[in-house]
Amino acid sequence: MPLDEFAIIDRFFRRASRRDDVCVGIGDDAAVLKVPPATELVVALDTLVAGVHFPEQTDPFAIGWKALAVNLSDLAAMGAEPAWFTLALTLPEADAAWLAEFSRGLFALAEEWNLALVGGDTTRGPLTVSIQVAGHVPPGEALLRRGARVGDALYVTGTLGDAAAALRDWQAGRAEDPALRGRLDRPAPRLRTGMGLRRLARCAIDISDGLLADLARLLAESPGNGARLEREALPLSAALRRRLAAEPALWAGVLDGGDDYELLFCASPEREAELSALAARTGEAITRIGTITADSGIVLEDADGRRQVVTPHGYAHFAPPQEESP
Amino acid sequence: MPLDEFAIIDRFFRRASRRDDVCVGIGDDAAVLKVPPATELVVALDTLVAGVHFPEQTDPFAIGWKALAVNLSDLAAMGAEPAWFTLALTLPEADAAWLAEFSRGLFALAEEWNLALVGGDTTRGPLTVSIQVAGHVPPGEALLRRGARVGDALYVTGTLGDAAAALRDWQAGRAEDPALRGRLDRPAPRLRTGMGLRRLARCAIDISDGLLADLARLLAESPGNGARLEREALPLSAALRRRLAAEPALWAGVLDGGDDYELLFCASPEREAELSALAARTGEAITRIGTITADSGIVLEDADGRRQVVTPHGYAHFAPPQEESP
Repeated sequence: MPLDEFAIIDRFFRRASRRDDVCVGIGDDAAVLKVPPATELVVALDTLVAGVHFPEQTDPFAIGWKALAVNLSDLAAMGAEPAWFTLALTLPEADAAWLAEFSRGLFALAEEWNLALVGGDTTRGPLTVSIQVAGHVPPGEALLRRGARVGDALYVTGTLGDAAAALRDWQAGRAEDPALRGRLDRPAPRLRTGMGLRRLARCAIDISDGLLADLARLLAESPGNGARLEREALPLSAALRRRLAAEPALWAGVLDGGDDYELLFCASPEREAELSALAARTGEAITRIGTITADSGIVLEDADGRRQVVTPHGYAHFAPPQEESP
Repeated sequence: MPLDEFAIIDRFFRRASRRDDVCVGIGDDAAVLKVPPATELVVALDTLVAGVHFPEQTDPFAIGWKALAVNLSDLAAMGAEPAWFTLALTLPEADAAWLAEFSRGLFALAEEWNLALVGGDTTRGPLTVSIQVAGHVPPGEALLRRGARVGDALYVTGTLGDAAAALRDWQAGRAEDPALRGRLDRPAPRLRTGMGLRRLARCAIDISDGLLADLARLLAESPGNGARLEREALPLSAALRRRLAAEPALWAGVLDGGDDYELLFCASPEREAELSALAARTGEAITRIGTITADSGIVLEDADGRRQVVTPHGYAHFAPPQEESP
């Protein structure tokens, strides 16, 4: 018997929740939730479209994981604690094997963070996954994009460029490094760091479209400010370092590749010790990569002091094709 | 110059909000919202896919209106007061004329209810509109699907079958009645009635997939219960009555047609006077159409007392094609 919309929800998406703040979950016209007193609600939304945000043949486990991860990364960038999510899933057909793997990936990450799926809509159409995540922060403590000041230190979590290198290998049909591929398929949202940055960072964003593109967004919220990046300071994984030695072209992915899902943030240089303590506590690396300057634009400085002005080439939806080689 | 994702958001979707509970709206990694103290959060989500939920050639104003209306109808069915919404819009191309009309339809309804658009995601792909609406209710007062008791009276708001008749005319290429077509394109969410039903109705649902299908869902939440519907009592618009005289086949749309977006609810017969007062206050008709019975199943009773057991034939995603004529 073919699976209808309700059978799909029952079989793959209705899970018992251990959260006591879900009064009504899946199965009514809407969910009813208890927001903790004296908090503000934080809501993020991201859609992944097959063939645009991920190759059509992507492993459904990775699609499920990543669709949630990219949203949790947005909450991390706000310093929020995640609580609930909803799923709008549009599918060309009801394929039980695909759904089983997709929901396994989705709940693997959801359970890691004790998140409840509280609502959703399953419709027929071209494969599109739209997730909305809600969480909360103490009043006034959400980390915004605006707030960078001249002289602030600029930091990133984790390492840059791994996912871009993996995508490049995949698209070229080359042998893949599992360490890089794991970063493309199963990004780890930096929620622990994000919550730890409340009242510590001045501003934050997550890197989804590339370091330069997302840095430009931070700077756009603090008009007149620019940034100087130290190329040697950019944190790279061991796997990527090995590859860069032979293929310097992979540097483009460090600066402009999307899908890093690391946090980029500014803080007063006086808070350095607190940041080190935070990194030690969470196990998520924090690296200083530059400084906010009074000159507009982004300058990249080499180890030998050479400087060049750089501009973002991150992915733009609806923009004309770029002239670079793919 | 082609419109990119950010230009689309700025030009068509960023509107000043008069709400003072939006701390951070569109433009950061997530929205930050103040939920009123001593309320519960109510969240609904619905996706509309071109070619599935509406014909491809649908007027973009109607798509914008309806995508929000179907979600507000879910909040109405919970008795919630709406506050904010988010939009995940997937578009095959960035067509400025289409976007202008779509956003005009969307905001026409949003402004009627003083709703703020607080976040969204615009991506390239097949036309899909996914909206999530959030609102609130006093603790414990959300109207659920469960709760019907034997002997309860069964009510609907407004009139039934208009949208189904309009869709049938459109699909058959027949001359259309604007009164019917308006009900298909611009359904009016019954929020005033929904809020008025708190502590008055025993349970509620909105009719999106047809009277019988949604009644069956209410009954499924109160096992062992059935319902008797009085055919003569079903509220019909003057426009539909005129058509039914010549085309009795349109009755199928009254019972099984989707897209009514009326509320269906149960209440103790003792509350009849309060319901009349509510209808008078809101201007939204409330009609008693039947009774909750101890026999499982739905029985339809004619004016002359003939009874037949009826089963829903509402639209089912992923289900095999039905054998009825379209």
